[in-house]
Amino acid sequence: MMGNRTPRVTIWNEYRHERAKPEVAKVYPEGIHQALRSGLTPYGFDIRTATLDEPEHGLTENVLNDTDVLLWWGHGAHDEVDDRIVDRVRERVLQGMGLIVLHSAHYSKIFKKLMGTSCALKWREADEKERLWIVKPAHPIAAGLPEYFELEQEEMYGEFFDIPDPEELVMVSWFEGGEVFRSGCTYTRGQGKIFYFRPGHETYPTYYREPVVRIIANAIHWSAAERGAAPQFGNAKPLEAIRGQG
Amino acid sequence: MMGNRTPRVTIWNEYRHERAKPEVAKVYPEGIHQALRSGLTPYGFDIRTATLDEPEHGLTENVLNDTDVLLWWGHGAHDEVDDRIVDRVRERVLQGMGLIVLHSAHYSKIFKKLMGTSCALKWREADEKERLWIVKPAHPIAAGLPEYFELEQEEMYGEFFDIPDPEELVMVSWFEGGEVFRSGCTYTRGQGKIFYFRPGHETYPTYYREPVVRIIANAIHWSAAERGAAPQFGNAKPLEAIRGQG
Amino acid sequence: MMGNRTPRVTIWNEYRHERAKPEVAKVYPEGIHQALRSGLTPYGFDIRTATLDEPEHGLTENVLNDTDVLLWWGHGAHDEVDDRIVDRVRERVLQGMGLIVLHSAHYSKIFKKLMGTSCALKWREADEKERLWIVKPAHPIAAGLPEYFELEQEEMYGEFFDIPDPEELVMVSWFEGGEVFRSGCTYTRGQGKIFYFRPGHETYPTYYREPVVRIIANAIHWSAAERGAAPQFGNAKPLEAIRGQG
Amino acid sequence: MMGNRTPRVTIWNEYRHERAKPEVAKVYPEGIHQALRSGLTPYGFDIRTATLDEPEHGLTENVLNDTDVLLWWGHGAHDEVDDRIVDRVRERVLQGMGLIVLHSAHYSKIFKKLMGTSCALKWREADEKERLWIVKPAHPIAAGLPEYFELEQEEMYGEFFDIPDPEELVMVSWFEGGEVFRSGCTYTRGQGKIFYFRPGHETYPTYYREPVVRIIANAIHWSAAERGAAPQFGNAKPLEAIRGQG
Repeated sequence: MMGNRTPRVTIWNEYRHERAKPEVAKVYPEGIHQALRSGLTPYGFDIRTATLDEPEHGLTENVLNDTDVLLWWGHGAHDEVDDRIVDRVRERVLQGMGLIVLHSAHYSKIFKKLMGTSCALKWREADEKERLWIVKPAHPIAAGLPEYFELEQEEMYGEFFDIPDPEELVMVSWFEGGEVFRSGCTYTRGQGKIFYFRPGHETYPTYYREPVVRIIANAIHWSAAERGAAPQFGNAKPLEAIRGQG
Repeated sequence: MMGNRTPRVTIWNEYRHERAKPEVAKVYPEGIHQALRSGLTPYGFDIRTATLDEPEHGLTENVLNDTDVLLWWGHGAHDEVDDRIVDRVRERVLQGMGLIVLHSAHYSKIFKKLMGTSCALKWREADEKERLWIVKPAHPIAAGLPEYFELEQEEMYGEFFDIPDPEELVMVSWFEGGEVFRSGCTYTRGQGKIFYFRPGHETYPTYYREPVVRIIANAIHWSAAERGAAPQFGNAKPLEAIRGQG
Repeated sequence: MMGNRTPRVTIWNEYRHERAKPEVAKVYPEGIHQALRSGLTPYGFDIRTATLDEPEHGLTENVLNDTDVLLWWGHGAHDEVDDRIVDRVRERVLQGMGLIVLHSAHYSKIFKKLMGTSCALKWREADEKERLWIVKPAHPIAAGLPEYFELEQEEMYGEFFDIPDPEELVMVSWFEGGEVFRSGCTYTRGQGKIFYFRPGHETYPTYYREPVVRIIANAIHWSAAERGAAPQFGNAKPLEAIRGQG
Repeated sequence: MMGNRTPRVTIWNEYRHERAKPEVAKVYPEGIHQALRSGLTPYGFDIRTATLDEPEHGLTENVLNDTDVLLWWGHGAHDEVDDRIVDRVRERVLQGMGLIVLHSAHYSKIFKKLMGTSCALKWREADEKERLWIVKPAHPIAAGLPEYFELEQEEMYGEFFDIPDPEELVMVSWFEGGEVFRSGCTYTRGQGKIFYFRPGHETYPTYYREPVVRIIANAIHWSAAERGAAPQFGNAKPLEAIRGQG
């Protein structure tokens, strides 16, 4: 990607709940994307935003080509995301763009397409406590974090979470109602590095919480790191003599 | 799946090359599926076959519901496989059907859909030698195998192979022309266990070779093993009292 | 190992608490090893037991050579296990003997030696509830299990658990007091397959519980499976001509 | 570890062959450690060296406490490394020091202790060609590398390599004589990040080769990255009320 260049981040948000539901607007008056932008700005990223109702959902070829890491928050309108834009995002991921999938975006078209599974899970909205335990403190996404942190009120997501085994499992959540969840999971697809991060229900101020913002900032750095050469595919000449060919 | 029941295997073959190309017909006169059937029969499986040009490609709901493990060989006609059948197969895999993906089926719709990547690779047809090294001898798919085995002539597949990191890497190939390849790779998707196995170009008698047949038989047993309970998804009642809810 | 032969199981138990502490003797009057033996017998294994205070801790060369899978329960006397016996067990594991490490044996010499880490964790004895969630229902160790099961009273073990990343994470525990734990973890070392399974504090009747016994039986089958050829190490002749050597 | 601080690197070398064997002295007149130091200096690390025959092998408490990443090259004198120093190094790794294990150090006490396996392999000294293929180009250790690179003459190491499954497999080698090898492998032990890197036989100028030096520099950055909080172990108070305890 970019050696030591400042990562160029695009925060994509469905941005419907905030405009339609007063209880969400109260928490995120300018939208989840703007709250994330404010929280991440001190980390020194080059940030832009994009939303569902912009032309091409704000994800033009130009925008994606200028993006090192894409954040994705969606919930009620996954089906309204144009398949052509999904394919465009997927291509960029396979070529090396980072992707950070937030909360209810477990059910986004782009995440399901990259995972190959249903990405289904158990859920409950009951204002319950979540405690996230770091199970891989050596991982760069855990940099600077305490052993665990709590969110006083969150939506519950419970196992079985129908995802491929994470390459690295960074966090596991404990829920007051009795469930556990693999809450911080890394994947590689092509040259692209993907991080799924569970918290972030739209009716709670989760994205203003420091450990949450720090994790997302860590994941941006992790997924924006420089890559090896783009692979060559297709018919290949031999690098050594082959006997059968004289 | 089935505890100690005999695994019910369906061998799916595109079955076009064998009918159209004399050099392939010479090697597999009744089709690759029949050669595999003959080789696997002594292992005691309950085997049927299905091919592209049958109605519903031979993969009706009934056939899939009666299948514990599906083998898939395809090459030139991936695009002719009906998307509805692909979705049907995928559903069964997520519910626990095993899937063994053979050679050029790395580019099949079903494999790409379950992997989420391009599944692209390097290739060359040059009658060259392949030597497969077992790098995980403790894996059940390696049961009874020597440390390595050779195929005197095979098509070359070379890295970078654009797949997700295998959960378990069982075999790595050495090629005469200078490449290496991750040739035996396991994955889990939902309840389904998937094995990708590289060898098997249609112009070579690979599927008559003992180590090759043994590996496929091992993979059938591995992918047909009994599962845990089918997961429940969706809204879930709490298992413990939640304070906020009195 | 042994194809379809009945697995030969040796249950090793420290067997001190049961003789010294009335509250333990009440739960396991003949020792944890005998309780496990009784529970596992209906599964059709060929079982023997061994304990710390027998000569060579009951783990002679002959016993180990006749063992396909070794179960290990220890707690207060890890240091009394002779290093020569530990090395002997380790050699057999590397050569293909299965090893099932139970509860407080996370701190046994043999487990620490095979893991390379401290195997430290958080713990608490508070008669609290544990709920084990299956996070890999396709794994053979989960065969026949429900989505989760509960132990009304257990000792708590909490993260961070200082183990290498499991190859496969099969279970995650929820604890009433607020912690989570990776409770079912698989590893391969050499040709040996290892399963760490958390529950089993000596003051609770955990090893009489059906899901617990079933998991151990599943793990025995999983770790006893046939292997590939024993690897050859050391100086190796080339398999292909090397130019520099004319 | 250290956020954006310059990584403090200690290069440890057995430094015997270079003094005893003219054919090695010709290639590395000041020792492998000095060649590595020269190659790595332009990357801006804070580098020191240490060798076997210094007091405490040059690895005093102070030196290790001032080290973020330790490189280790050893071959003929593994047994002369004091077990107390090995334990000291291991403690620092578990607490978060990076460790880069080079070539014949696969058989070092420290690597075997951290892996838990024999770390045995096949080998051959035959001036043969090695070609290293990148199989995970998205990994930071592959940053800036081509798809593959060649070493005209190297010692052969061949599978089966008796190591635990790597967490991430970054490189696979092809050898002229017919073998393959997992040549770039990552592990986590405690808070420490470990990279095993195959090339580097003492009679070849491998450590002057640009891709080799770049890989080691990448691995230093990767293993020096900031960590999460140091875990707390031992008896832990509950974070939630436990019913049984009133």
